Amino acid sequence: MIWTPAPYRWPDPFRAAACFTVDVDATAPYLWQHRGAMPPTIAALEHRRYGMRRGLARLVDMLVRRGIRGTFFVPAIVAEEHPDLLPGLLERGQDIALHGYMHELVAEISDAAFTEALERATEIFVAQTGQRPRGFRSPAWEMTPHMLAELARMDLWDSSLMGDDVPYTIAGVPELPVRWDNDDAIFFKFLGAGDKSPRPDHEVVRQWQDDAQAQIDSGGLFMLTVHDWISGRANRVARIDDLLRGLAEHRDVWLTSCDALADHHRAMGGGLQVAPDQLAPPHSKEFT
Amino acid sequence: MIWTPAPYRWPDPFRAAACFTVDVDATAPYLWQHRGAMPPTIAALEHRRYGMRRGLARLVDMLVRRGIRGTFFVPAIVAEEHPDLLPGLLERGQDIALHGYMHELVAEISDAAFTEALERATEIFVAQTGQRPRGFRSPAWEMTPHMLAELARMDLWDSSLMGDDVPYTIAGVPELPVRWDNDDAIFFKFLGAGDKSPRPDHEVVRQWQDDAQAQIDSGGLFMLTVHDWISGRANRVARIDDLLRGLAEHRDVWLTSCDALADHHRAMGGGLQVAPDQLAPPHSKEFT
Amino acid sequence: MIWTPAPYRWPDPFRAAACFTVDVDATAPYLWQHRGAMPPTIAALEHRRYGMRRGLARLVDMLVRRGIRGTFFVPAIVAEEHPDLLPGLLERGQDIALHGYMHELVAEISDAAFTEALERATEIFVAQTGQRPRGFRSPAWEMTPHMLAELARMDLWDSSLMGDDVPYTIAGVPELPVRWDNDDAIFFKFLGAGDKSPRPDHEVVRQWQDDAQAQIDSGGLFMLTVHDWISGRANRVARIDDLLRGLAEHRDVWLTSCDALADHHRAMGGGLQVAPDQLAPPHSKEFT
Amino acid sequence: MIWTPAPYRWPDPFRAAACFTVDVDATAPYLWQHRGAMPPTIAALEHRRYGMRRGLARLVDMLVRRGIRGTFFVPAIVAEEHPDLLPGLLERGQDIALHGYMHELVAEISDAAFTEALERATEIFVAQTGQRPRGFRSPAWEMTPHMLAELARMDLWDSSLMGDDVPYTIAGVPELPVRWDNDDAIFFKFLGAGDKSPRPDHEVVRQWQDDAQAQIDSGGLFMLTVHDWISGRANRVARIDDLLRGLAEHRDVWLTSCDALADHHRAMGGGLQVAPDQLAPPHSKEFT
Repeated sequence: MIWTPAPYRWPDPFRAAACFTVDVDATAPYLWQHRGAMPPTIAALEHRRYGMRRGLARLVDMLVRRGIRGTFFVPAIVAEEHPDLLPGLLERGQDIALHGYMHELVAEISDAAFTEALERATEIFVAQTGQRPRGFRSPAWEMTPHMLAELARMDLWDSSLMGDDVPYTIAGVPELPVRWDNDDAIFFKFLGAGDKSPRPDHEVVRQWQDDAQAQIDSGGLFMLTVHDWISGRANRVARIDDLLRGLAEHRDVWLTSCDALADHHRAMGGGLQVAPDQLAPPHSKEFT
Repeated sequence: MIWTPAPYRWPDPFRAAACFTVDVDATAPYLWQHRGAMPPTIAALEHRRYGMRRGLARLVDMLVRRGIRGTFFVPAIVAEEHPDLLPGLLERGQDIALHGYMHELVAEISDAAFTEALERATEIFVAQTGQRPRGFRSPAWEMTPHMLAELARMDLWDSSLMGDDVPYTIAGVPELPVRWDNDDAIFFKFLGAGDKSPRPDHEVVRQWQDDAQAQIDSGGLFMLTVHDWISGRANRVARIDDLLRGLAEHRDVWLTSCDALADHHRAMGGGLQVAPDQLAPPHSKEFT
Repeated sequence: MIWTPAPYRWPDPFRAAACFTVDVDATAPYLWQHRGAMPPTIAALEHRRYGMRRGLARLVDMLVRRGIRGTFFVPAIVAEEHPDLLPGLLERGQDIALHGYMHELVAEISDAAFTEALERATEIFVAQTGQRPRGFRSPAWEMTPHMLAELARMDLWDSSLMGDDVPYTIAGVPELPVRWDNDDAIFFKFLGAGDKSPRPDHEVVRQWQDDAQAQIDSGGLFMLTVHDWISGRANRVARIDDLLRGLAEHRDVWLTSCDALADHHRAMGGGLQVAPDQLAPPHSKEFT
Repeated sequence: MIWTPAPYRWPDPFRAAACFTVDVDATAPYLWQHRGAMPPTIAALEHRRYGMRRGLARLVDMLVRRGIRGTFFVPAIVAEEHPDLLPGLLERGQDIALHGYMHELVAEISDAAFTEALERATEIFVAQTGQRPRGFRSPAWEMTPHMLAELARMDLWDSSLMGDDVPYTIAGVPELPVRWDNDDAIFFKFLGAGDKSPRPDHEVVRQWQDDAQAQIDSGGLFMLTVHDWISGRANRVARIDDLLRGLAEHRDVWLTSCDALADHHRAMGGGLQVAPDQLAPPHSKEFT
């Protein structure tokens, strides 16, 4: 397998693909982190509220102006707090997908709690939009075999893993791979003195542009992930707009949403197949 | 609210605003940190004393030369140690505002202690300058509902939160928003081996310039915060001088002080209104 | 010795050398880290599996296309899981060398366990390729006197230490020195929120190019180390390809493998000689 | 004092000064760190030994070639291990000064232990060179009132504090100020996975060049500090050589050693005077 990497074929006339996604976390990770006891301080909350007040609209306006269909992953608690969020995204031609109920971290919840949050979130999506969500992204991009089995059961695609540059199938679930390097939070997120200092906007976007070009050159998928309260700032939207303009000018790049990628993947097949018994490490039996 | 961000209107003929502020911390955070037991070592103290010895004068000279009114947030203990500081700033056409008594960290003090520090600091300002301070910035930019209530009671504006790009009103208090990305300390502060290594001056100021331009383009407020002992160094002042010269050349940018911004905000209204019962997270009842 | 650094002579007509190496870690460090109890999560595993699925082939293709013989350090557990790895590397004109059995960290194993892992790995290499490996690189680049003695006993060269810019001899073992600054992992590796954020590809490769030029100018050895799952990404391979193209254009730079460097070093001698009794610090007796 | 920073006058015809210094730490900090129990591993030792094997000679050759007198701060244990170090530096026209016995960290030793180390180091310097050292730099740049009193008693200048841009006098001791930003270790030092990743050589030296120019423009002192095993690498020496060439071309910059700076300071006076009772924070009585 090493010497014959799985080929992938994009729909004609495209030779590569790109996908712009937003993890609409808002205050959800903060609510999760402090679910046991909410502190009296409000600075981090106000910082995160910037997304719903200004950042998200700026990002969506950019997409609408460019005629791009992005994919928005929304924790259901955020949709509950902002009932005009999911309908408004759909009205503006955007795709929506699941992102947990309260941005639950996999490592901190049981299998049953995951399933409950997934079903509860699905119900909220259905109630607010009249349609079932078709895809899922894990908060913090962690995954377990149980989660994959649940996604398969509910016929959801996933976008949380990093095992390839192009869509693949893992335990029966279509995987639209992400990459830490193409996530805004690890470069920009700053909530207090112990955090890494933010990198310059132009430096980070230059790297994303380089990576997008390399994916185009090699027939891959460039998947970008940003957050409402982090990249909704004016200069970041301006730089990301440059990046998307460049991608849109490539006639042979399929700039599309996750739903469309998953539809293509299901219809055309191709790519890597990871069987359920290949999820665990091959030698784990020795250690457990 | 997501889809209709609160508009903001600047005084004619301006279409955006910029504000240069200095948190004159000097040794105050060190005194607070070691208030229980002062160590015998003096390296960090000498490092911080650079501000009062050289850095602050260099920053103020720059502002005076350019005819810019900045805003200086001064912990009262620093004013006590340097009785010519507050009067000297006023003589040089600068605004002054509160920054705690000993740079108390919110998370480490009671509500009563905050109120006591605020009142004690106000008395020192009045005694040294004959006038009441009109604004406040929280050390480390943290905030609580109690603090906002006290600011409202004392008719003070605030400049500590990050919930928008333009002034807004929170629990009745005019908020002139800050942003970590536009603070010098998170890029330059280095006091010992465990700290993040400083970023190049030109890289950081280039990012501030990019962000200022994006705020101008989108009608926002560019609020910059520096510290006496950090950015008073010769090359940083030279680079910041470049930035301010660029801002001053924009005829449609209102380059002004926090007091003037707050006056405008109170007179014109506009912007976001955050009610007192919107401070806490909407779901916190579930967890407390 | 300070004032007369050990001279080194490269084979005619070369005046400097360069060596491209890959530490084919794949999932081995993860297996080692979690050998006591394997967690149910799979994100880090999938991330690391990128190397065997796509990254390694891309790196090897680049070398083959340029006619460069690289050196691949392979933990034996990775060779066991991928039986076509070692034979495939040899077929493609690449050198292979030892890198532990399960990427054991020196600080966590006994001398006996090191020897056992070294011998077990050697047997696997022999079984899969019919030939004994000739060199070794320590996982995480740590070393002890016992390890050096074992390498000498098995007639293996080493490439794990940083005591010079050119090959030297330490406790009888030919040392082909590495350098953290010329390792991809410390700039790019990101597996979760606490890690350092990745640096831009072009920035890191620019620094490697600068360092390579300085080694050429001073007659040294430029040794580069990358990892299958980290630098096998499309843009990194493109940038590294630029670097190797530049090196290959230098007629007086010997761009070669570790085996060839070690052969030269053994045949020509030269360089620094570190005696076994010089390994421990001179004053350690006082403290033990 | 805030509004009238202490003026400083350089010898005619100079309007600014620059000083190149090397902290010749070699293995001393490692010996200090592990003085209780030396581990069996040798990677960090070999890494640090690069300085005495190659790096220091490269740095000194550069200075000799340019006719620059640098200042070398040498822990006495390093001089003991390398008896040709101090005499060799003097023969090559360089200045030498004290840097502790075993790079003792101030926070970990008693006042008496500091004095003993200082006197023991002085004796070793006298025995090896026939002359008393005239200056001192504290390991890790920490300082106490006791240390300053001892330096005054032994008539030593100091170069460890950051309270100004130009020489000043603190508790009777001439202080030649350093600055973290102009130290190579905080940008380049990397000894293992938990450390900060090194910054590009050209980026760091560009910042030093910017700062040097700003000091020239403002009549200050540009003091640079590098380490034998960190900046003795080929590309770093090449970049630092560029920096020093630029400084040497300025006819009005006094590029000189610490001894010469201290002589000038003692003869001319000027600059800031910090009295012994100004060392401790003014409010420390409240807290002790």
